[in-house]
Amino acid sequence: MKTGFSGGLAIDVHSHVYPGRYVSLLRARDAVPRIVTRDGQDRMLILPGEDADASTSVGRPIGSEYWDGARKLLFMDRHGIAVSVVSPANPWLDFLPGAEAGPVATEINEDMEAFCAAGAGRLYGLGLLPVRDPVAAASELQRIGRLPHLRGAVIGSTGAGKGLDDPALDPVWAAAEREGLMIFVHPHYGLGNEALAGYGHAMPLALGFPFETTAAVARLVLGGAFDRFPGLRLMVAHAGGVLPYLAARLDACVAGDAHSPVRLRHQPSAYLPQMYFDAIGYQAPTLALLISLVGADRIMFGTDHPFFPPHVGNAELDTAEWHSPVAHRAVLRELGSEVEAAILRGNAMTIFGIDRIP
Amino acid sequence: MKTGFSGGLAIDVHSHVYPGRYVSLLRARDAVPRIVTRDGQDRMLILPGEDADASTSVGRPIGSEYWDGARKLLFMDRHGIAVSVVSPANPWLDFLPGAEAGPVATEINEDMEAFCAAGAGRLYGLGLLPVRDPVAAASELQRIGRLPHLRGAVIGSTGAGKGLDDPALDPVWAAAEREGLMIFVHPHYGLGNEALAGYGHAMPLALGFPFETTAAVARLVLGGAFDRFPGLRLMVAHAGGVLPYLAARLDACVAGDAHSPVRLRHQPSAYLPQMYFDAIGYQAPTLALLISLVGADRIMFGTDHPFFPPHVGNAELDTAEWHSPVAHRAVLRELGSEVEAAILRGNAMTIFGIDRIP
Repeated sequence: MKTGFSGGLAIDVHSHVYPGRYVSLLRARDAVPRIVTRDGQDRMLILPGEDADASTSVGRPIGSEYWDGARKLLFMDRHGIAVSVVSPANPWLDFLPGAEAGPVATEINEDMEAFCAAGAGRLYGLGLLPVRDPVAAASELQRIGRLPHLRGAVIGSTGAGKGLDDPALDPVWAAAEREGLMIFVHPHYGLGNEALAGYGHAMPLALGFPFETTAAVARLVLGGAFDRFPGLRLMVAHAGGVLPYLAARLDACVAGDAHSPVRLRHQPSAYLPQMYFDAIGYQAPTLALLISLVGADRIMFGTDHPFFPPHVGNAELDTAEWHSPVAHRAVLRELGSEVEAAILRGNAMTIFGIDRIP
Repeated sequence: MKTGFSGGLAIDVHSHVYPGRYVSLLRARDAVPRIVTRDGQDRMLILPGEDADASTSVGRPIGSEYWDGARKLLFMDRHGIAVSVVSPANPWLDFLPGAEAGPVATEINEDMEAFCAAGAGRLYGLGLLPVRDPVAAASELQRIGRLPHLRGAVIGSTGAGKGLDDPALDPVWAAAEREGLMIFVHPHYGLGNEALAGYGHAMPLALGFPFETTAAVARLVLGGAFDRFPGLRLMVAHAGGVLPYLAARLDACVAGDAHSPVRLRHQPSAYLPQMYFDAIGYQAPTLALLISLVGADRIMFGTDHPFFPPHVGNAELDTAEWHSPVAHRAVLRELGSEVEAAILRGNAMTIFGIDRIP
């Protein structure tokens, strides 16, 4: 590994993998999400309707950087990342009925465990769930808890189809709480896409993704999941969507609604400091706001690799400098060395039970 | 006026009025937006579909606090607000075809001028536009420029129906720039409402409104309006929606899209410091972030009156303490007395050309 990275070695808690069997599944599909081959180049279409938006090229190139552990380690070496907590990228198994998804989830979670086990102590992981069948998802979480390199599971914004406040998901939260596993809430669908088209991928990713995450987590809070499962460990993608910016506005709008059906033990913003967040905020003022609401000890460095690649050919991806890790390191540098070290690696060691940096 | 308000007297740049002729128009309608009478109580339905959401009561009570200038002044007296810059509340004339809206806009803007003229130096205003006919809207803006108490106009997120990046709106931006008038971008429709239902008004107002504002202003920026009209004066509601939290993420997503159609002179976030913002952020960290991006001299106190009333009968509204002005004052107090004074009144005097506090 190169040395001399500002702030020292990092642990990356937001890093994605498409395990081989998941890629095969996407290749076999004829609707989004799918992998298609155009002009000899595999391209992945994962955003709903993105093949219909003339302002985007068809999906994005996909290569072995999404499933090859050796390439993950090359990226980590290049950017001073000692350890990554990898998770399956969206859209997971949201598109499969629960009965079909159960055995697939088990296989893919075994793949995730094998991927991490081959990392010589540098890879930990999160699994995925057959989320449309919450009882099966709860069983799968329990199984994940027995896989030595896995630390929890990733979940989308729709849950079993009705949002994260769906009471049917209670067995999932109960299992996560009981096993002490992390649930990583990650966007996929975008929210408000009808108002975000026409400028390529930029607005759906920059705005629609955090809108979606925000709505999903707000529903979870307003529905009372944290009152029912106070030990639930939730990690929210992309610096919490935009819920941190709007936290007190949500409090005021709940309190100001004379007919509010919300019945919580605390005001909504009081649940934010129970959650965990990646540091994918792109600017120091965003991280500063998040820190002031939840504390610097709940925020962890992330890169979103292998999304947002540099504009080079696939062969150069392993040696090129990627914008995301460099930009996120630069943001942390502005926050002072103590906070920088905590967010770069210390917090992740504590939160994910990583006892040493190899 | 009561004295002894922490921080001193305020200028409120986000304060709403429904002029009498607008109320008559809403009473005569049979689709949202409309005013209905239920159990002897006038109720206003302005959010799309809100009468269909069983979790909300039907709309919200509406009384003369929305059109009576004397009651506006009582509210101002009660909360240490010396001057208000009042604007017609949503949804303005978005629902009227341009040809029909033109004469109505002229009448209502005359009403706004009369409303302010009766305020003994304490009321200034923004008008509304027949926005679905941008050429007529540009003419109306020019007329607004000749009304002594008006300082610009409010506009919704959809513009003439296709968003604020619609090139058809260029005559509106050109007229605003030429006349030095402020354009106040305000939400109405909400964005992502399908994911925000089930908890009363809280989520559409707390989240959907800022999502809508954010998408609208991002479109305006990405479409190049500030490159074509660098002197355009834009005030963005509710502390900028959430665009400030996501500003650098938007930059990164535009730069990271190899096929981006965006062609701007600067990166998107560089246009934020050209805009103006109200201070309706509900928490000090939100204002601190906004200040760090745009400077404290572009942010102005606002209340959103007469929305978010206290839970008292209509007769008590004039004497009760309202949460919004108290909460927003408390936030400013956390930012230090110099910033507090600038945001409470100094900035508004400069930006809106208010030469003295009566």
